[in-house]
Amino acid sequence: MASDSTELVTFFVISDSAGETATKLAQATMAQYPSVEFNLFRRTFVTDKETLLNALNDALTEQAIVLHTLINQELIDTARTFCDENELFSFDIMTPPVAEIERRTGIQPTRQPGALHLLNENYFKRIKAMEFAVKYDDGKDPRGFLEADVVLLGVSRTSKTPLSLFLANKNLKVANLPLIPQAHIPKQLWEVDPKKIVGLTNDPDILNSIRKERMRSYGLNPDTAYSDIEKIRAELDFANDLYQKLGCVVINVASLSIEETASLILNALELEDHSYYGTESSETSD
Amino acid sequence: MASDSTELVTFFVISDSAGETATKLAQATMAQYPSVEFNLFRRTFVTDKETLLNALNDALTEQAIVLHTLINQELIDTARTFCDENELFSFDIMTPPVAEIERRTGIQPTRQPGALHLLNENYFKRIKAMEFAVKYDDGKDPRGFLEADVVLLGVSRTSKTPLSLFLANKNLKVANLPLIPQAHIPKQLWEVDPKKIVGLTNDPDILNSIRKERMRSYGLNPDTAYSDIEKIRAELDFANDLYQKLGCVVINVASLSIEETASLILNALELEDHSYYGTESSETSD
Repeated sequence: MASDSTELVTFFVISDSAGETATKLAQATMAQYPSVEFNLFRRTFVTDKETLLNALNDALTEQAIVLHTLINQELIDTARTFCDENELFSFDIMTPPVAEIERRTGIQPTRQPGALHLLNENYFKRIKAMEFAVKYDDGKDPRGFLEADVVLLGVSRTSKTPLSLFLANKNLKVANLPLIPQAHIPKQLWEVDPKKIVGLTNDPDILNSIRKERMRSYGLNPDTAYSDIEKIRAELDFANDLYQKLGCVVINVASLSIEETASLILNALELEDHSYYGTESSETSD
Repeated sequence: MASDSTELVTFFVISDSAGETATKLAQATMAQYPSVEFNLFRRTFVTDKETLLNALNDALTEQAIVLHTLINQELIDTARTFCDENELFSFDIMTPPVAEIERRTGIQPTRQPGALHLLNENYFKRIKAMEFAVKYDDGKDPRGFLEADVVLLGVSRTSKTPLSLFLANKNLKVANLPLIPQAHIPKQLWEVDPKKIVGLTNDPDILNSIRKERMRSYGLNPDTAYSDIEKIRAELDFANDLYQKLGCVVINVASLSIEETASLILNALELEDHSYYGTESSETSD
């Protein structure tokens, strides 16, 4: 057992497709070791034995931790044999759940690489959702509220835009509206089902420091009215007042990341996570 | 071994955070079984034993396949014991790679839930990248080209906007420009390092059918000039001509999903995937 604070650990993500699943796992793992330095190499679209063996040999040279999501049985076996023979750590992420479904249903997996990314109806819905998010960002066109699956409201710096884009990637049509006291609230908002509306709020102190930071990053004086704490409180009061009148869900994003807020929104609005569904059957559920 | 074509399989994703990693794996697995009907339940932000046991009991009622990314050792042990005693299939995704790093480095993981989503400097970079993508989408402001990490060019329906948003989620500042013959090419484009430019192209027949579909979805006549095949060829010729002059990478998105195209762009421009890095050390590498 080595114990060296300047340790470098290398990950090799090997996938027959874009490598998103294994990359996410590598990143979640790395986040558990803030003092360790990591390299992350991705070998994607690996669909033949020769390319796979090249990737594995490179991983061996680096003494890497191999995470793979291969689905072709011959490639899975090749990886297992190679890693066994060379005592290279390898984690086969797909086989356990895939094998369990085969065991339960007696149905064979298609073993088609990139099945997650099939250009099916659901995929094109997601593309449309992403375009929708850009089109109806920042209250650009209030007609979007009536078409949206989710309407996000919030004062400046409550992550409306990134949240809209993140939820769009989950096939949800999201429109957002920045709230400024005295600003006109578009009449369409009152026609939206409150169950589709999420009011975002934040702690005044946090907004204050985020906004000062933003001013600084723009090379401006941080102590402007934009970051003034009393003004921020007035903005938040105005927003919370509107949320009450609308009767919508309110989420304080103070200590939440986009992923966490998005997850809370899916739970609160009882929406399913439709991202990347590759199957026909799941497309019928929205 | 059951063999029933109307089989329903239920996934329970259990996470102490937003559940993104396990959800992705569940979706990749489901995509391998297009004929099987799936339910996917997500229990997120599970950070205490009681909530975990409730989730596991619900999973047991549904005879679900449990995928979890718990990091607290007591919760991991609780899940293992419960699933063993009740013969419930459970896949612990985080433990193998986390344990391997501990074995190699002798360093303990922080076992902090949601470490992937720390609101650190890198996280705020990603938020900025998402705002950048919206601001500089669709050639709105050519000054964005000079600040961008990636400039995407392409005729209509080559997925510029969704690609920009997807890459933004990986911390890359992306600007895009739609190409229309006879349109003005902003002078800033010639000042951009060609190594940062990606020219998107597509097969004329595919563009033709996508555009017809788009016209239909807008309730318009699909046989307009927008979908005319000769016009499409002229557009693509114009675009390919420009790509040659710029000396940029060209990617044909005809049979590629956003994830796949994004992965090819990262490879072609030798960019790292910086999404979700939670560690200090990885922040220095861009």
